[in-house]
Amino acid sequence: MSIEHTVVFRLVHEPGSAAEQEFFATARETLTGIPGVADFAISRQVSPKSAFTHRFGMVFADQAAYDAYNAHPAHVGFVEGRWVPEVAEFQEYDFERL
Amino acid sequence: MSIEHTVVFRLVHEPGSAAEQEFFATARETLTGIPGVADFAISRQVSPKSAFTHRFGMVFADQAAYDAYNAHPAHVGFVEGRWVPEVAEFQEYDFERL
Repeated sequence: MSIEHTVVFRLVHEPGSAAEQEFFATARETLTGIPGVADFAISRQVSPKSAFTHRFGMVFADQAAYDAYNAHPAHVGFVEGRWVPEVAEFQEYDFERL
Repeated sequence: MSIEHTVVFRLVHEPGSAAEQEFFATARETLTGIPGVADFAISRQVSPKSAFTHRFGMVFADQAAYDAYNAHPAHVGFVEGRWVPEVAEFQEYDFERL
């Protein structure tokens, strides 16, 4: 069964800043280049009921594809080099449609 | 711009129970009957990084459609009669794709 992997988050950067835009552009280029990543999307979180400001979403065909993504050097490098220093807070969710 | 309205939650019911299944069936029937609700989906939340167990997702063509849904008697009745007593905890998010 396919898995929709999502993370909602807030960056340390000012909303609308060049640093924010560069983060998104690099994330898109890096993560969509990893095998198994489908339907990659960046969304703005607009509900006032949450302090998170954005979401990354992607779909994996199965758990094996998801595991391979997590272990891929490009993913590990992005997390260590960009995600950890530039994301103020985040929450992950994974979904399987009923 | 279309808005993806989501809520992740955990029910008071036992996972896999008849009460859980009845809640989902009623939610689907009630909420998909409200004008403006598109792409309604119920998903299981499977990441161990969150205690929420399910998500409702739906798409509105614009803010006016979303507002009409919120004010619709069928939505108000579902929230008061089923959501409040049967949902242990939840978090709403709304997304606009970049």
